[in-house]
Amino acid sequence: MEGIHLLGEWYGCPAEPLLTQADALRDLCRRAVDESGLTIVGDRFFQFEPHGVTGTVLLAESHLAIHTWPEAGFVTVDVYVCNYTTDNTAKAERVFEALERALQPAHTRFQAIHRGGRKRAPPCCPAKHFVLRDPAR
Amino acid sequence: MEGIHLLGEWYGCPAEPLLTQADALRDLCRRAVDESGLTIVGDRFFQFEPHGVTGTVLLAESHLAIHTWPEAGFVTVDVYVCNYTTDNTAKAERVFEALERALQPAHTRFQAIHRGGRKRAPPCCPAKHFVLRDPAR
Repeated sequence: MEGIHLLGEWYGCPAEPLLTQADALRDLCRRAVDESGLTIVGDRFFQFEPHGVTGTVLLAESHLAIHTWPEAGFVTVDVYVCNYTTDNTAKAERVFEALERALQPAHTRFQAIHRGGRKRAPPCCPAKHFVLRDPAR
Repeated sequence: MEGIHLLGEWYGCPAEPLLTQADALRDLCRRAVDESGLTIVGDRFFQFEPHGVTGTVLLAESHLAIHTWPEAGFVTVDVYVCNYTTDNTAKAERVFEALERALQPAHTRFQAIHRGGRKRAPPCCPAKHFVLRDPAR
């Protein structure tokens, strides 16, 4: 049950339409998952009033979660996949990158966390790496 | 949009009924959230065949996600809350602890990740801490 969990904080995203409209964000997320080769088993999105969207796509391989604060141009995204029968890391990265391309953050923070595996890890285990990415990459 | 994200990997959980039955796990998750004082805005759970459950509860404050592998007694859980208008950290911890009490892991791994906040963090920022918890605590 080893897995990889990609976590993004995206700043300076254009608000319209993806940060404000649940249906548009849901369509984007489902399309990104479908095109990655991961398998959708359900989803749920919620439209906040006056603005903001929260949503998840359940995967056979675990989940995608996304939250938007359009008033701040801010988004958090999680893509977590288990590598139960095959290594799904590249597919998770494809979903993450497709969402980032669509949401166009000016600045990003990124972490990738290895999950599962050993029952016991040493204290202060460097289980994640922390990478600052240039939005112009 | 500061927030806290609690991530657990729980080993040695009894399989029946919570790791195998989506309805039972959904009820547990919703009850844990309700009792914490966080606000549910939706949920979606999926029952795998022959076994296993994946599910999310959408919160006004972000989300809860849980995945079970009953054949291995293994569970991963995420509780992520933003602290937009108030500090929801204690409520997130209450959800996490209620689920852990119910699912009875023999061993756990735990990480807490601070999300949002500054646009730029220094390289190798210790954005998370890693704590090994004694299941007998």
